Amino acid sequence: MSAAKSVAGPLAIVAGGGALPAEVAAAVAASGRPFIVIAIRGEAGPEMEPFSPHWLDWGQIGRFFDILKSAGCRQIVMIGSVTRRPDFRAVTPDLGALARLPKIVAALIGGDDTVLKRVIRIFEDEGVTIVAAQDVAPQLLAPQGPLTRGRPDAAALADIEAGSRLVATLGAFDIGQGVVVLGGRVAAVEAAEGTDRMLERVAELKTIGRLPAKGRRGVLVKRTKPGQELRTDLPTVGPRTVELAAAARLAGIAVEAGGVLIAERGATIAAADKAKLFLAGVRLDSAEPGA
Amino acid sequence: MSAAKSVAGPLAIVAGGGALPAEVAAAVAASGRPFIVIAIRGEAGPEMEPFSPHWLDWGQIGRFFDILKSAGCRQIVMIGSVTRRPDFRAVTPDLGALARLPKIVAALIGGDDTVLKRVIRIFEDEGVTIVAAQDVAPQLLAPQGPLTRGRPDAAALADIEAGSRLVATLGAFDIGQGVVVLGGRVAAVEAAEGTDRMLERVAELKTIGRLPAKGRRGVLVKRTKPGQELRTDLPTVGPRTVELAAAARLAGIAVEAGGVLIAERGATIAAADKAKLFLAGVRLDSAEPGA
Repeated sequence: MSAAKSVAGPLAIVAGGGALPAEVAAAVAASGRPFIVIAIRGEAGPEMEPFSPHWLDWGQIGRFFDILKSAGCRQIVMIGSVTRRPDFRAVTPDLGALARLPKIVAALIGGDDTVLKRVIRIFEDEGVTIVAAQDVAPQLLAPQGPLTRGRPDAAALADIEAGSRLVATLGAFDIGQGVVVLGGRVAAVEAAEGTDRMLERVAELKTIGRLPAKGRRGVLVKRTKPGQELRTDLPTVGPRTVELAAAARLAGIAVEAGGVLIAERGATIAAADKAKLFLAGVRLDSAEPGA
Repeated sequence: MSAAKSVAGPLAIVAGGGALPAEVAAAVAASGRPFIVIAIRGEAGPEMEPFSPHWLDWGQIGRFFDILKSAGCRQIVMIGSVTRRPDFRAVTPDLGALARLPKIVAALIGGDDTVLKRVIRIFEDEGVTIVAAQDVAPQLLAPQGPLTRGRPDAAALADIEAGSRLVATLGAFDIGQGVVVLGGRVAAVEAAEGTDRMLERVAELKTIGRLPAKGRRGVLVKRTKPGQELRTDLPTVGPRTVELAAAARLAGIAVEAGGVLIAERGATIAAADKAKLFLAGVRLDSAEPGA
């Protein structure tokens, strides 16, 4: 890391939505490494302003590489949510985007990899390396053990084990960073809708009696998938996750220690304690399929 | 079958909701086998009335076995949806239920099997055999091949293949009769919410741009899971499935030939043709995990 830091020059932080981009920027600032911020318009929030970001639209790919070049950045971190799928009819490509268009189209339509992995390859073809947020801000990773006063009981531990195996299995299908398991039964599986909507669904299914509603039961399990692109796409929890897990009357949230980012850690733990939810980092190595 | 029919005496059809119970009753009537209908109050609809059903509440387990005994029924078919989880605080058990309570509780809390399999065991302990709806009404099963004018194109076939593998894999977790795959990517996985709500979610995710909304894309895949209890729990599609798949702007619906029941076949196919969806039965044997 430190060798890489010394030769790598300034870092470009490409910021999407949520609290994590500013937390990463603050961590990089604290580490002393020079950096610039490129904020995606419509995704990144005003909390990036203290870092004097370059605001870019989808389609300003030429300008993006120009900024990297003039700042001397050969490493970038991509961090934050991208909730809106860009409407490509509304995107105005700049000249640099047009010049790269054949390559971009070829990357997006070809191959068996995910779109994300193909986008990363486009960057790497331009001599830009993607660095993981957790490599420049490891303090954002979930540690092992309970972070809250509450801890998982035996029933929750069994749900965590089942959920962890399910997420690992789903990895082959490139889905399922999150699942909810309740009393040993799978209540919900996250695919395109994301964790928040899945939790809203669990709350609703309890309300209408399609899931047992008595007491605080069930666990949200989030972990990385085998084969996941760990540099850009780590599962994340934050205060909103806790809020929705509490609304779904879950017993708690289990995240993979060292594999899930916690946004706004203080607020997240405080919200969980207030709602009497546990939030725990768990080692999940033994939960690989076939293990 | 015919040997079983001749020795088995009259059949009891236990009717939940939806169109299938009346279709099964009509098929059994047409076959000439004597039968009675026991309709679950709050689930079965008025379309059961022509079959002079015994209406039973949850909790009337004693009366249920009394009816079977006095009608001489030693085989039952359980068919139709049970959308409401019985509120056991509101259930008034009859004497026969109370007498069986220790056995029922032991069955419900013990073992690794699903609740359904345990309920079946309770019946079997009482000398009652569960017969599959498709054994007394095989004409309700999806046949192989397209049922509609529309047929799956190459993209849809690839989605069907991926979806089928996913459902088979999810079988180990006792979920996932239904999934939606779109452009090779898993858009939604059904767990406790059921197929209808999953399709509503896909429609919503397309509307808000979390899934590609252009054109009619994506396939709902429904199939049995390895280890599924085939006598009581076969996946089902019907006009409402088509309606929701059309609202989600899917290309079509693929069901396992011989493994999925089609309710209101005429109306289902007509609705699919009208919406320009394909509905196809596909052989999925090659899609077992590891195959």
